[in-house]
Amino acid sequence: MGGGPIQDQLLIIFPFANPPEAAITHLRHKFPQIDIVTHIVPYTRDAALLASNLPPNVYKDATMLCTVHAFPQALADAPKLSFVQLLSAGSNQIQPNPIYTDSEIPIATTTGIHGPQIAEWVVMTGLVFSHGYRKYYEDQKRHEWAKNSFSAEVRDRVGLRLGVLGYGSIGRQVGRVAKAMGMQVLAYTASEKSTPAKRRDPGFVVPGTGDEEGVIPDEWFSGLDKKSLHRFLKQGIDWLVVAVPLTKETTHFLSTEEFRVMAEGLSGKDKEGRKPFVTNIARGPIIDQPALIDALKDGTLGGAALDVTDPEPLPSDSELWGLENVIITPHVAGSTTEYITRALQVLETNLERRDKGEPMLNLVRRDRGY
Amino acid sequence: MGGGPIQDQLLIIFPFANPPEAAITHLRHKFPQIDIVTHIVPYTRDAALLASNLPPNVYKDATMLCTVHAFPQALADAPKLSFVQLLSAGSNQIQPNPIYTDSEIPIATTTGIHGPQIAEWVVMTGLVFSHGYRKYYEDQKRHEWAKNSFSAEVRDRVGLRLGVLGYGSIGRQVGRVAKAMGMQVLAYTASEKSTPAKRRDPGFVVPGTGDEEGVIPDEWFSGLDKKSLHRFLKQGIDWLVVAVPLTKETTHFLSTEEFRVMAEGLSGKDKEGRKPFVTNIARGPIIDQPALIDALKDGTLGGAALDVTDPEPLPSDSELWGLENVIITPHVAGSTTEYITRALQVLETNLERRDKGEPMLNLVRRDRGY
Repeated sequence: MGGGPIQDQLLIIFPFANPPEAAITHLRHKFPQIDIVTHIVPYTRDAALLASNLPPNVYKDATMLCTVHAFPQALADAPKLSFVQLLSAGSNQIQPNPIYTDSEIPIATTTGIHGPQIAEWVVMTGLVFSHGYRKYYEDQKRHEWAKNSFSAEVRDRVGLRLGVLGYGSIGRQVGRVAKAMGMQVLAYTASEKSTPAKRRDPGFVVPGTGDEEGVIPDEWFSGLDKKSLHRFLKQGIDWLVVAVPLTKETTHFLSTEEFRVMAEGLSGKDKEGRKPFVTNIARGPIIDQPALIDALKDGTLGGAALDVTDPEPLPSDSELWGLENVIITPHVAGSTTEYITRALQVLETNLERRDKGEPMLNLVRRDRGY
Repeated sequence: MGGGPIQDQLLIIFPFANPPEAAITHLRHKFPQIDIVTHIVPYTRDAALLASNLPPNVYKDATMLCTVHAFPQALADAPKLSFVQLLSAGSNQIQPNPIYTDSEIPIATTTGIHGPQIAEWVVMTGLVFSHGYRKYYEDQKRHEWAKNSFSAEVRDRVGLRLGVLGYGSIGRQVGRVAKAMGMQVLAYTASEKSTPAKRRDPGFVVPGTGDEEGVIPDEWFSGLDKKSLHRFLKQGIDWLVVAVPLTKETTHFLSTEEFRVMAEGLSGKDKEGRKPFVTNIARGPIIDQPALIDALKDGTLGGAALDVTDPEPLPSDSELWGLENVIITPHVAGSTTEYITRALQVLETNLERRDKGEPMLNLVRRDRGY
């Protein structure tokens, strides 16, 4: 690697009908020493279909590959390949490929680009619940100025406590916005974060968002065992945002006992009327869903906002749909028109870093699988 | 005034059924030299009804009065009065009273305590619109996981421009949250704010919120004339939040021409698909409502969120109710369970300042009427 011009071919395979021409032109100007070749394929995991939409030997001269699902099927097809930039936040699709299993070619994801959009969804649904917006929407449909339809006034979020279960790129942006709303922020991570270096976000951060230095939380907690989890959950958390990856350890991480611990943490005379609200934007199976339904029905929890369920799609006969204290959307929180623009910002950052011989961002660690 | 103990009687007249006992006890402990007397009256402007709920000569020994609508009807009834703390953000109700017209007794309001709650409403309704939440709510009611019911993805707020028309306590808190969401913030004020001292918020600020030092905006604009207003509105503003007081100058401050100027400011090839969204949490007549309806129907504006209308209640036959790009709530954005707690925080701050001989917060300027 090292500084100075290098002779490279960057092969970009877009699974989008309208690749962002301006962004590609920008990359060509910024990296004149890189030969940038682009192709468009359908959005599919079908390797044969992908291959039929690409020229033969398309990977032969590529030193770098930027793609979602299209890969060489043998390492010999891409003899010069030294870097793969996935245009996805995860890397599951490349894990069966020999690039992943039989080489050490660095593979980067676009993790980090979903923070702003998902944090907006989290804040929106939380406030829709606390402000009782859905009632006002029904009033609007009836053309009814029902000023006194609510007997209770709204508790704003100032001074309430946000627990972020999984303080990664999404959790950090939720924390940033919640802090601006006057909330206290409690961060929970798998491994302990006792030093400023450990608290930094090592991945891509959308400029102007997130918590790159890890300075937003008022308190930090960590661990993957029940005891550590319960220690966190009993801290008087008004609003728990679930943002951990789904792993063996986090499957049914939250169940009856955890909801009870949270509710007990909110008891006491200075916390009257406060009940935990749970937001899940990660994966449905992290929450034991029947236990969640019980806790929502018996008043252990105040409410929930779910962009993910178990299973998906949520069957139409699920009791969750009809609970008045539940907000459900169909796994859409991460969708944004800015997706490809931000994904190419990650690529650009990595091209710069490669050029300077610096460590690249968002590299997949094969030992842990993400 | 000056330091040291003083002999004072603070008369607090609550128009609430359940005065906050803990807060009053706190004040008694903190200010043992002040004799604190409390009464409860109905929430009414009817002076005779108020008087009938209070002892005769109730104002006789009061050096300080904390109230909403109950006042002495003659200055002679309150010969020792030297300070009035209103438990309201405005002061209209005291303006016909001799305390206001015939004395120079300092009168303070609770302005500043509404920022957090109203900013939440602003952010919630803006995101409900941009994320198309109301469609998902209808899907939930039908138990329908309609993942692909939206063809368009959501444009998150990162990099978009928020214009705050009226950068007071509410506008500052909206700016704070919007900045955390990655937005650029443009502040507009009546008088120019060219120095750090001018940019400070001189009033009460709910701790952990707002922009006390005035450091959040990326750009500042000012003026009350059309030319100044248009200069601001043409800055490519994606989201305009109306937070100015209603005065002669601000009546119909926004009309057809202003909406056109805003839309033109968002034209250009890097701004494709961006249309101005207008939020009004101030007063209905600041916007020329028929012009607003036209601009929402002809696509000049992308949408609007209105907690205030002209008139209120909004008549059921108003076209506004049924416009799909409009969100209406019945003047509820300022309601919060924390109202009286925060109002008493203003009183406490002013008692401290009075004790130290410092200038009090939130004093009404009789020359301008607020």
